[in-house]
Amino acid sequence: MAELAQLIDSEVFLAYATYTTIVLLKMMLMSLITAFFRMTRKAFSNPEDTATFGKGENAKKYLRTDPDVERARRGHLNDLENIVPFIGIGLLYALSGPALSTALLHFRIFVGARIFHTIAYLTPLPQPSRGFSWLAGYAVTISMAYRVLKTGLYL
Amino acid sequence: MAELAQLIDSEVFLAYATYTTIVLLKMMLMSLITAFFRMTRKAFSNPEDTATFGKGENAKKYLRTDPDVERARRGHLNDLENIVPFIGIGLLYALSGPALSTALLHFRIFVGARIFHTIAYLTPLPQPSRGFSWLAGYAVTISMAYRVLKTGLYL
Amino acid sequence: MAELAQLIDSEVFLAYATYTTIVLLKMMLMSLITAFFRMTRKAFSNPEDTATFGKGENAKKYLRTDPDVERARRGHLNDLENIVPFIGIGLLYALSGPALSTALLHFRIFVGARIFHTIAYLTPLPQPSRGFSWLAGYAVTISMAYRVLKTGLYL
Repeated sequence: MAELAQLIDSEVFLAYATYTTIVLLKMMLMSLITAFFRMTRKAFSNPEDTATFGKGENAKKYLRTDPDVERARRGHLNDLENIVPFIGIGLLYALSGPALSTALLHFRIFVGARIFHTIAYLTPLPQPSRGFSWLAGYAVTISMAYRVLKTGLYL
Repeated sequence: MAELAQLIDSEVFLAYATYTTIVLLKMMLMSLITAFFRMTRKAFSNPEDTATFGKGENAKKYLRTDPDVERARRGHLNDLENIVPFIGIGLLYALSGPALSTALLHFRIFVGARIFHTIAYLTPLPQPSRGFSWLAGYAVTISMAYRVLKTGLYL
Repeated sequence: MAELAQLIDSEVFLAYATYTTIVLLKMMLMSLITAFFRMTRKAFSNPEDTATFGKGENAKKYLRTDPDVERARRGHLNDLENIVPFIGIGLLYALSGPALSTALLHFRIFVGARIFHTIAYLTPLPQPSRGFSWLAGYAVTISMAYRVLKTGLYL
């Protein structure tokens, strides 16, 4: 287990682990936000979820979409679309031996941008706030991908 | 390659690899279930998918949503939303050197909960079966994230 | 950091890093394609995104779905559903010590199949082009999962 210990002791890898965990927890928060809106707005997708509101027609009216629920769901999907590439490319980037300060800059901008993206989406803030925060995270991932491919391209 | 051999020989990492592969295969099964419902219910999203049922208006009527197809798709998306954090945080957790028995407990509860979640979603079982199985997987991931951040927080 | 250097120097791992980065960049391209269709077709999901087209009723008419936007979004979601298992299982596969030529065969077929899948989805090409390209990627992932579980099953 000596290798594992050294792997986990590399500062770049520790930083990757910390920021990845934080941004994944942020993404998981979207499930709770969606559930909160579903319950306060009484808007569900599955008949079995509305059983506590009565039977038959009385329950059926809660099988509907709600703008706040849909907004939270779009934010969640946007997280998936952007955080999955960050985790995959970020792991390879962390293993490519970047300078600690450069790596920290990448991770911090990405995680900050995604947190701001969620705030901009849920408030909602006027555009282009959400667009710019999306772009910042996107650019960080492209920059890490560039370094991974430059360090060791093997086709 | 000695390091790789030792990495892959760590029992915690082997357990992580086994349970991650199983839960990803389970997630991939959702594609087949959706395809099965699309074909038996004749409900498609793309005009080119309905070409075998004839041309023009005759094929167009199969461009529709079906409750069983949508249910399988929601189960698939819920898998993505929950399994992605498990894989990312689980990898870092496996590298953080947890006790084998604790790690196995986490992995087994998560994979068991997600398999039960799919059964509860597709049957469908009355609530709160699906809600509780979702919560069990969610709690396991939070617990692993807590250990990762406690072991080596590097902000 | 010697271990990291040797890990990243293994040719199989380098190949995994290269193909994973390429296929994730391809997936990220779907965001730009969706944004392109949203802007040229003027079809948005959020009121704040239509603010540049005027106020009130004039902007509201752009809150609609468009077949091309929905098609790009379905392609993006299909990428997520298939590339997430590839990355997770592929990493474990790369660490299981496969022969370089076998590993390259797996990675190349998967990435080629997903690029073709996107072309088949967006053109759209007549079926079963898209179906077969989906199946090729699916089969590669199953084959890698089989090797991972055969190399070290730890339940």
